[in-house]
Amino acid sequence: MSKIKVAIIGCGSNANAAHIKAYLNNPNAEIKYFCDIIKEKADKAVLDSGCGEAIEDYRIALNDPEIEAVSICTPNHVHAAISIESLRAGKNVLCEKPAARTYAEALEMQKVQHKTGLVLNIGVCNRFNTGVNLIKKMITNGELGELYHVYVSFRSQRSIPGLGGTFTTKSIAGGGVLIDWGVHFLDIVMYCSGDPLPKTVTGQVYSKLGLDMPNYSYLNMWAGPPNYSGTYDVDDFVTAMIRTEGPTITLNGAWAQNIGVDEMYIDFLGDKAGIRLQYGKDFKVYGAKDGVLLETTPSYKSVDKFQNEINGFIDCIRTGEKLPSHIDSVILSSRIIQGIYDSSDLNKEIAF
Amino acid sequence: MSKIKVAIIGCGSNANAAHIKAYLNNPNAEIKYFCDIIKEKADKAVLDSGCGEAIEDYRIALNDPEIEAVSICTPNHVHAAISIESLRAGKNVLCEKPAARTYAEALEMQKVQHKTGLVLNIGVCNRFNTGVNLIKKMITNGELGELYHVYVSFRSQRSIPGLGGTFTTKSIAGGGVLIDWGVHFLDIVMYCSGDPLPKTVTGQVYSKLGLDMPNYSYLNMWAGPPNYSGTYDVDDFVTAMIRTEGPTITLNGAWAQNIGVDEMYIDFLGDKAGIRLQYGKDFKVYGAKDGVLLETTPSYKSVDKFQNEINGFIDCIRTGEKLPSHIDSVILSSRIIQGIYDSSDLNKEIAF
Amino acid sequence: MSKIKVAIIGCGSNANAAHIKAYLNNPNAEIKYFCDIIKEKADKAVLDSGCGEAIEDYRIALNDPEIEAVSICTPNHVHAAISIESLRAGKNVLCEKPAARTYAEALEMQKVQHKTGLVLNIGVCNRFNTGVNLIKKMITNGELGELYHVYVSFRSQRSIPGLGGTFTTKSIAGGGVLIDWGVHFLDIVMYCSGDPLPKTVTGQVYSKLGLDMPNYSYLNMWAGPPNYSGTYDVDDFVTAMIRTEGPTITLNGAWAQNIGVDEMYIDFLGDKAGIRLQYGKDFKVYGAKDGVLLETTPSYKSVDKFQNEINGFIDCIRTGEKLPSHIDSVILSSRIIQGIYDSSDLNKEIAF
Amino acid sequence: MSKIKVAIIGCGSNANAAHIKAYLNNPNAEIKYFCDIIKEKADKAVLDSGCGEAIEDYRIALNDPEIEAVSICTPNHVHAAISIESLRAGKNVLCEKPAARTYAEALEMQKVQHKTGLVLNIGVCNRFNTGVNLIKKMITNGELGELYHVYVSFRSQRSIPGLGGTFTTKSIAGGGVLIDWGVHFLDIVMYCSGDPLPKTVTGQVYSKLGLDMPNYSYLNMWAGPPNYSGTYDVDDFVTAMIRTEGPTITLNGAWAQNIGVDEMYIDFLGDKAGIRLQYGKDFKVYGAKDGVLLETTPSYKSVDKFQNEINGFIDCIRTGEKLPSHIDSVILSSRIIQGIYDSSDLNKEIAF
Repeated sequence: MSKIKVAIIGCGSNANAAHIKAYLNNPNAEIKYFCDIIKEKADKAVLDSGCGEAIEDYRIALNDPEIEAVSICTPNHVHAAISIESLRAGKNVLCEKPAARTYAEALEMQKVQHKTGLVLNIGVCNRFNTGVNLIKKMITNGELGELYHVYVSFRSQRSIPGLGGTFTTKSIAGGGVLIDWGVHFLDIVMYCSGDPLPKTVTGQVYSKLGLDMPNYSYLNMWAGPPNYSGTYDVDDFVTAMIRTEGPTITLNGAWAQNIGVDEMYIDFLGDKAGIRLQYGKDFKVYGAKDGVLLETTPSYKSVDKFQNEINGFIDCIRTGEKLPSHIDSVILSSRIIQGIYDSSDLNKEIAF
Repeated sequence: MSKIKVAIIGCGSNANAAHIKAYLNNPNAEIKYFCDIIKEKADKAVLDSGCGEAIEDYRIALNDPEIEAVSICTPNHVHAAISIESLRAGKNVLCEKPAARTYAEALEMQKVQHKTGLVLNIGVCNRFNTGVNLIKKMITNGELGELYHVYVSFRSQRSIPGLGGTFTTKSIAGGGVLIDWGVHFLDIVMYCSGDPLPKTVTGQVYSKLGLDMPNYSYLNMWAGPPNYSGTYDVDDFVTAMIRTEGPTITLNGAWAQNIGVDEMYIDFLGDKAGIRLQYGKDFKVYGAKDGVLLETTPSYKSVDKFQNEINGFIDCIRTGEKLPSHIDSVILSSRIIQGIYDSSDLNKEIAF
Repeated sequence: MSKIKVAIIGCGSNANAAHIKAYLNNPNAEIKYFCDIIKEKADKAVLDSGCGEAIEDYRIALNDPEIEAVSICTPNHVHAAISIESLRAGKNVLCEKPAARTYAEALEMQKVQHKTGLVLNIGVCNRFNTGVNLIKKMITNGELGELYHVYVSFRSQRSIPGLGGTFTTKSIAGGGVLIDWGVHFLDIVMYCSGDPLPKTVTGQVYSKLGLDMPNYSYLNMWAGPPNYSGTYDVDDFVTAMIRTEGPTITLNGAWAQNIGVDEMYIDFLGDKAGIRLQYGKDFKVYGAKDGVLLETTPSYKSVDKFQNEINGFIDCIRTGEKLPSHIDSVILSSRIIQGIYDSSDLNKEIAF
Repeated sequence: MSKIKVAIIGCGSNANAAHIKAYLNNPNAEIKYFCDIIKEKADKAVLDSGCGEAIEDYRIALNDPEIEAVSICTPNHVHAAISIESLRAGKNVLCEKPAARTYAEALEMQKVQHKTGLVLNIGVCNRFNTGVNLIKKMITNGELGELYHVYVSFRSQRSIPGLGGTFTTKSIAGGGVLIDWGVHFLDIVMYCSGDPLPKTVTGQVYSKLGLDMPNYSYLNMWAGPPNYSGTYDVDDFVTAMIRTEGPTITLNGAWAQNIGVDEMYIDFLGDKAGIRLQYGKDFKVYGAKDGVLLETTPSYKSVDKFQNEINGFIDCIRTGEKLPSHIDSVILSSRIIQGIYDSSDLNKEIAF
């Protein structure tokens, strides 16, 4: 098969850490354009990759009939607009997570995908993680029995990213810890549970520890350094409860909190066995048999989730296969996240 | 002052572990009756205490004009009835927690207390715990800043009590882990937060791991051994979210779960500082100042909470002081717990 | 059934830590005599137990027709003689491990047992340990596949007992670390492997670190304090390899060694799975499935092995059941241990 | 002195990782030929090194009178033949370890060395390791007192190399974990102990975990990937006991085992002190003095063992010095390894 020509739109950290390398390793893909509104970033990507052309305006790529696919790695606020424009230009799209700032935007993206029939996958990379897929398989096979509850903890003592920058500006990012970290955790839960439809959502978000920016204490800051003249209007703490057609889900998440332990895990509670997944690490299975309690730690060869994601994207353009990262699956997390923000505004539960 | 004569109604583990010893140590109290429908228990209490009279029918005590106070240590299903009958007989009452099986029962108790003007305290012993009071003082003094969220975890891998007995029979106990353990945890939260009025409650309870009693695996069983021909119709897992006039509260509780770590703690999240209280143990305070994160572990002399509770009860009979364990405060937890059970039945949030 | 009257012969640490308490807890047994050549020990046992009579000469018990059973807890050098005399006097015998100082003595004991038909069990208490029995069951069920090798490590940096006393005097104890610790480890291996017949034994024992008694450095000494005018002529290190009809076995044991880690474990190597048992603690199971490696830690309710052992002994007197601790099973370890000592003297392997 | 011209025979991983680089760094050596039957490997070596000529047939080098020395880095099965042919052609030889597949082959090599008087060193690189030489010096100086036992552990959970390839094919490699890893460990023991003559050898080898190749689970495979249509007829586990004129030696080795800890160390047990050497890492010395136990961890600058080895080889060609890696020393390990394989076949100990 001839190589699929790709344009990378947005050459920031996501593109560099994940997308670009994976396309370069994929024998059926070729990057033709590196696009960034900061030209230097695009130039550097061309230099590092030894291929492609640096552009500032993504419309050059969309107008190039050779381009079959685009990877959208921009800040969140233009995810929807560029995805939609790309689909309408006849391009297949892999858009970084979250799909969009709001559920309404995500719905619009889905509508255009349905109309065009082109690929619209979201960068929910954990759906391509080896350990996550082992868990999904165990749940599907019934090894946990009935999965009745999932508890999700993504709490860090001090980890607000780029204080005063795009991450903490609602009009750009769409939200804070819930949309940035929560989307990953929630996506793993939804994927492993078989993407069950949500029925009720209640939650509350708080913007507390980063609010007084100059007095925010921290040891390290990713996506930093802080910009004290910037904006901080996003959530740094979230708590929520969701009823679904499958398990109930409760979550607590903190970009920053005054509790000095980082707890980043998901507990899958089944009536036969349970699993605690340490996010980005390994997991333990807890069961019982004949009066004996069993704690099992699996070890396994992990395949690079980003490579899997990109390979899957490239393949499905040709095969038409619907991947687990399709907008139709991912839209559910978007709905839940929107539900939490709305419920927080209304101070009450929302039923779908 | 002349000694206050007391009747102990119900001579089981609560009476023996806490009440009796404390009355014996109180110089202003004297136990006149030990009552239990199982006569041997009452006899043994008389023998162990070296005082009092063993009776089977608590009405003997209620009809004795010398008796000023009763301690009700029976199973939960007769808490309300005996409390009410005692108040009507002119006795001051200390009733073990939970106040009652249902909020309706608790309201009825409160009504009679208001009418009679006698003491009706509930055995929320943690309100007399030294560490808990230190935390309450810190919160009240503003040392945590705004307390915006409390997360409550009372999760054990395998700790269903007396499987098939009074603890696991709803008509007797009123519920399972929520009413038995949750009431303690929730009471600490309410007390430390200043007993804020609840606004919404949503939650779900599950009866899973003890359901198939003969196949329930465990290492030790308190209040055991199991009675496999008994009843198991109570919750062994609960999850909930509560909005109050103060902080939001989320909780996960398990008498049994397929996760192999016991996590029994309360996280108080303030915007200046936070506290993790390990239930029944010590607590840590987490703060930050000028870029430095501080973790502080206070050590302090603990006074026996049960002795404090009994002393307080005896004193307030004479002084008329309203203790933190008064039914008027405790009724709020009862309302919340009822709300969780109701919300679980209805599968939706309840607003007050 | 009428209670079985028992005599305890030897009231030292083994009797006190294990036998006596277990007989007192057994509803079908009654201790009539406590015998010790140091009268004070026997007196103290009577006092502590609140029953029985203190005697100095065990023949009083052997001549008492009411006595049905004896527990022999003396030093090793009189195990054989008293066991044989007891059997000939018509008593059932539970003799502490090791059965005897030498294989020849053990064979003589077995011969008399066969002639009299009375019970002769050896105090191989680990055969009544819950964890050990779980392992045996897993091996028997084939969960480890073929068990091809067992590696045994009972190595301590500094743990010579009672330097210069009965433990370190060959004429009394029969040997050092091999006969004192090795017998326990080897017995677990033999029991779990189905008591396979040994085919070849080669080994070497060393008496090194305790030899210059006054200069032996140690932190703690069990069965101490040292008696520098006593004898030290036993092995403090042993290494050996055994071929059996089942797995091969290699072992390294040290009461004392110049390696600063205590390694007390048994590795059972099967072609499907393996187990590392930490002696006296828990065990881990290692397996693999579909490219995933699994490490499992079972938790289980442990029943008191000494109580099990004594209960089993008392029961089998009436029922005639042959227990795993019968001399016929235990004689194999005795043969192997003798083989190691003989091989060490001859500097070559011994084939049976 | 004029540069010694060298031919590299076999341009696989050993040559690339060790020999070639060291010759290039040695001012007195010059590589003239890179030989490999896979021409591409030789070509690549020429390219990477910037010198020499690529050849397919090593006889070209043997026939070139300019060549004084050859490094034999081929698979094991042609070690003996090429070494002998090289010596007979008048070349000095450094042959990778193991000397040969069998003791008979190694003896033949030694015979030809003696006849020709040329250098025949074996690639026992640990004899040029800084830490190993520190240990040897301590032992020789008597700092450990009498060295009475050495325990050798080279056990890995999952580390079979190149399943189905040259490593696991007996006719090529001569054996599995014993000849591949064991030779290194045993060589260190022999070297540090002063190359004591072996007296008895008993051992057993097993081919278990790699036998069912398609179902062998692993996380990583060195010298991989697996070739499922290849051969697997070598040992993946070995256990043995050796008596020597010096210490006794016991060993357990596993390329793969169902125990989830990798234990790669050598314990030297002396009556004054002991040493645990972590293979390829550091070592700890354990001693005792006046009741105080001492654990000492030396830190030292390590010189590249491969460079030492090559420098020594080049120097000794001119000086005639007999290095510790001379065939006369190394032949002892070969004898022991052969003894273990033979003992395993015969199921009994072998005396020399």
